[in-house]
Amino acid sequence: MNNFFKFPFVRFLPSFNRFQKHITQTYCGLSRFGGDFEPESWKSMEGLVRCSANYAPLTPISFLERSAKVYRDRTSLVYGSQKYTWSQTRQRCLKLASALTQLGISRGDVVATLAPNVPAIYELHFAVPMAGAVLCTLNSRHDSSMLSVLLQHSEAKIIFVDYQLLPIARGALDLLVKTQEKPPILILIAESGSLSHTSLDANDYEYESLLETGDSRFEIRRPVNEWDPISVNYTSGTTSRPKGVVYSHRGAYLNSLATVFLHGMGKMPVYLWTVPMFHCNGWCLSWGVAAMGGTNVCLRSVSAAGIFESIASHNVTNMGAAPTVLNTIVNSPVSDQKPLPHKVAVATGGSPPPPQIFSKMEELGFDVTHLYGLTESYGPGTYCAWQPEWNSLPLEERSRIKSRQGMQHLGLEEADVIDSVTMKSVPVDGKTVGEIMFRGNTVMSGYLKDLKATEEAFRGGWFHTGDLAVKHPDGYIEVKDRLKDIVISGGENISTVEVETVLFSHPAVLEAAVVARPDNHWGQTPCAFVKLKDGFNLDAQEIIKFCRDRLPHYMAPKTVIFEDLPKTSTGKVQKFLLREKAKALGSLS
Amino acid sequence: MNNFFKFPFVRFLPSFNRFQKHITQTYCGLSRFGGDFEPESWKSMEGLVRCSANYAPLTPISFLERSAKVYRDRTSLVYGSQKYTWSQTRQRCLKLASALTQLGISRGDVVATLAPNVPAIYELHFAVPMAGAVLCTLNSRHDSSMLSVLLQHSEAKIIFVDYQLLPIARGALDLLVKTQEKPPILILIAESGSLSHTSLDANDYEYESLLETGDSRFEIRRPVNEWDPISVNYTSGTTSRPKGVVYSHRGAYLNSLATVFLHGMGKMPVYLWTVPMFHCNGWCLSWGVAAMGGTNVCLRSVSAAGIFESIASHNVTNMGAAPTVLNTIVNSPVSDQKPLPHKVAVATGGSPPPPQIFSKMEELGFDVTHLYGLTESYGPGTYCAWQPEWNSLPLEERSRIKSRQGMQHLGLEEADVIDSVTMKSVPVDGKTVGEIMFRGNTVMSGYLKDLKATEEAFRGGWFHTGDLAVKHPDGYIEVKDRLKDIVISGGENISTVEVETVLFSHPAVLEAAVVARPDNHWGQTPCAFVKLKDGFNLDAQEIIKFCRDRLPHYMAPKTVIFEDLPKTSTGKVQKFLLREKAKALGSLS
Repeated sequence: MNNFFKFPFVRFLPSFNRFQKHITQTYCGLSRFGGDFEPESWKSMEGLVRCSANYAPLTPISFLERSAKVYRDRTSLVYGSQKYTWSQTRQRCLKLASALTQLGISRGDVVATLAPNVPAIYELHFAVPMAGAVLCTLNSRHDSSMLSVLLQHSEAKIIFVDYQLLPIARGALDLLVKTQEKPPILILIAESGSLSHTSLDANDYEYESLLETGDSRFEIRRPVNEWDPISVNYTSGTTSRPKGVVYSHRGAYLNSLATVFLHGMGKMPVYLWTVPMFHCNGWCLSWGVAAMGGTNVCLRSVSAAGIFESIASHNVTNMGAAPTVLNTIVNSPVSDQKPLPHKVAVATGGSPPPPQIFSKMEELGFDVTHLYGLTESYGPGTYCAWQPEWNSLPLEERSRIKSRQGMQHLGLEEADVIDSVTMKSVPVDGKTVGEIMFRGNTVMSGYLKDLKATEEAFRGGWFHTGDLAVKHPDGYIEVKDRLKDIVISGGENISTVEVETVLFSHPAVLEAAVVARPDNHWGQTPCAFVKLKDGFNLDAQEIIKFCRDRLPHYMAPKTVIFEDLPKTSTGKVQKFLLREKAKALGSLS
Repeated sequence: MNNFFKFPFVRFLPSFNRFQKHITQTYCGLSRFGGDFEPESWKSMEGLVRCSANYAPLTPISFLERSAKVYRDRTSLVYGSQKYTWSQTRQRCLKLASALTQLGISRGDVVATLAPNVPAIYELHFAVPMAGAVLCTLNSRHDSSMLSVLLQHSEAKIIFVDYQLLPIARGALDLLVKTQEKPPILILIAESGSLSHTSLDANDYEYESLLETGDSRFEIRRPVNEWDPISVNYTSGTTSRPKGVVYSHRGAYLNSLATVFLHGMGKMPVYLWTVPMFHCNGWCLSWGVAAMGGTNVCLRSVSAAGIFESIASHNVTNMGAAPTVLNTIVNSPVSDQKPLPHKVAVATGGSPPPPQIFSKMEELGFDVTHLYGLTESYGPGTYCAWQPEWNSLPLEERSRIKSRQGMQHLGLEEADVIDSVTMKSVPVDGKTVGEIMFRGNTVMSGYLKDLKATEEAFRGGWFHTGDLAVKHPDGYIEVKDRLKDIVISGGENISTVEVETVLFSHPAVLEAAVVARPDNHWGQTPCAFVKLKDGFNLDAQEIIKFCRDRLPHYMAPKTVIFEDLPKTSTGKVQKFLLREKAKALGSLS
């Protein structure tokens, strides 16, 4: 018998409002079950109750409710010439939530979006949960065919579509019509001047017009239970077909706060959006910035010029960015750069960044925090917490230290490197490789409609990240490779991250990725895909020699291919595509 | 039927560890009950589970567990020449928890403390919950008789006693022996040199020796349920007999984070302890500082010299202090003061501070945040969130604005001023008086063994603070009086806080408190108790005239008595004692 969620003496007293539920709280030791709990006597603490006075399900909706009071006239969001206050944002979200219910959205329905970081997608992060619904932010780089699969899988009732992505969405809906009785309602997110009425069908809506039909006195449909889903995030597909990762209101609340702490945000921060909000709900900062009463600076597309321009004109204090965006920043022409008004705190993560990127960002005046996480951990789960004594180390050493993935953030219960066979923690020797595993409230509820995959991911009571890492003597984790990316050559494991780090240290290399190429003799050999910086010219042998000078010979690439690297919209290299190319090359020996 | 905490499809899969409980999560609209929920269809999101991978009860124990890893070699606590790291603090707490269980402490037992802010009381904030027990920090100013009542009421099994408070504790135990079969075990908190073995009875223990008997490999007894009690705090008794306010692990976790935010703590803050840890568990910062990996600077007793000295030698970044402590600081002789190494952030609350105190603190280089809360709200519940545009106002105006109690902090769901008859929110006119009420996760679980008082406090689904206030046009709350403190003279309500503010503005006044004096003609008249600064000499008529020049005449005191004010250990004036004195004076007219 599980007493965990059981309150034996449930009593309902006369209610004064809809939330009031008095429950005589009994607190107890667990009686023995499963054989692993100590038997303990029951004790009760009389006099305790649970009701609306002392209990509310945790939800990010509370962040907006509070900021609309405390920071009501402060700027919530800027996008070009558009600007809102927190009070206005709340009003707009209430109207939107009301409009959604008028369209028939009820508790638990899924509402999808297909949009870059425009104001609408920010507002939908609150409006959809306020309507009791579940937000499904789709990756803007998907094609119509993938989109139709995800819309069908998520059973989305509505899809909000940015005007630039309308053709792709239309294509997806056309595919859906063939199989589905009621395809999702399309709501166009237009921009001033972009609204071409010819592109709207009779059944379609336009965002601002729809919002205007809503009632700002809408009574928010708060989660009945804090474990209710708030969003579904399809994984970005570096390895296989996207899976629907479900977030709860509770997890979103807790990860928002942990991510705010990790970013070192002060009061009323100004946050520049380069992380797509469709990726882990913007690492939960779509909600976190509201918690802090900060200002969201939205950008439709990411460019170095746009980033420097936004920082200067809006006094940006914080930003998040995938390593590939940092790469864009540090390699941008000086004409695109502007002096920073002050130190700008940048959190980066999503793929292991080469150490060099940190030194270059620091030289430009950024203060970079390195974080690590996955869609399954609501975005950030660990970060390389900075110890002040490291400040006195040489820049190169600091960058090497910072490239490690670090320790669990405030919201995660445990992050560890574990031998996936014995389920034992690996020694803190900086050498023994194990799998990074997470435990805690900021791990997903599971994969939508895929209990098998969920149970597989949670086997042993830990979330298995699929990333291979070591633990250093100070306890910090360092990722060595994805489980699926590792190259095994002549029985030796080769960390592709280590080879890539050497490649990135070459002054001519802009981007690099290493995958396994099948080999009749060695089993596999490392194959490097490299993109050179403009104006450089190098041949494969020079690259190979450069690596052999810096690595054990078996780790150096045997093949080098010069080309643009295929990436997901979140800046991760799609290694599975490169692996297919390497496979097509056939054996070298 | 309440579906709120019900998971209809509970399944237990083979467990790998003691926490693993897979539960197929079903999320649902509530079916109609109580008549006030919308009927909604049930929906399930297949594939979701709950187990140790994605769920852990919220508890401040996690803060220590994390900081012992991330900040393991950083200073956790300084006290004179004593100094620990976070790794050491964790080790010591584990040993202490282990020792407690060896003494027979089991889940839900109460462990009491009677001590000032020494390292032991800090460690017990973690060690007691780690043993699965409930911490009851008793006020060090209680006498033996009150102590014996509280020990009996709380059923404490153990009491930890600071060596300076041993006689009082011994007196309480002597009283208990007469009524109780098994009085609590006494554990002496000695200090180097203080340990006089003659003062220990055969059944007593000494803190450090006891700790040494513990095993640092102790397996933490984490809360089974996050609503399990973590502590009992007896209210400080400004109005009536102390009540046992019960905190949960969940509430403590959430209020710790909200309080950290409110204090504007950065990474690794250095926090100076002048707020007694026995008061609302130090506003939850006993746990909050651990969350941030900060440093606790402990002080046995509070003096201006000690505060300035600690700030200078430990580079203090943050402190909390009752207004009476701020009064001590600003009125301290210049010889006790030292220049601050940087701006020191101070949060103050506990009683309405006179505006003048803010300007004087600012002049000394402190950055003061004004907060408001009660024992029942885990300490801080609201704060006067500072809007940057106020920085340009004159100092006096800034101080007046800052003396307001403000808005709810991040952990509280709602703070409002409500007409306690109609239960409607008062208008935001700065005039209409109502009662401050709170709703949210950072409100107590209830009064121990006093269901009637709990239900009374929570009537209408809100926690009734008993404080009267207005709401200003910007939504900020301003306390006018305690419900019990208000003076009603000739049918007019007089806010004693307003009269006290005028009294404090007199350059000769050090402390002031106003209460009602019974009056045959007026019903009541205001009676002021005043303590003058050293070197000043004033008579009652001068005080009365000063007030009449600045207030409507009916509000000015009719009686002025010069004397030291009786205070609780947390610096609150004990108005009930003054009321008795005023009553003894009889009618003026």
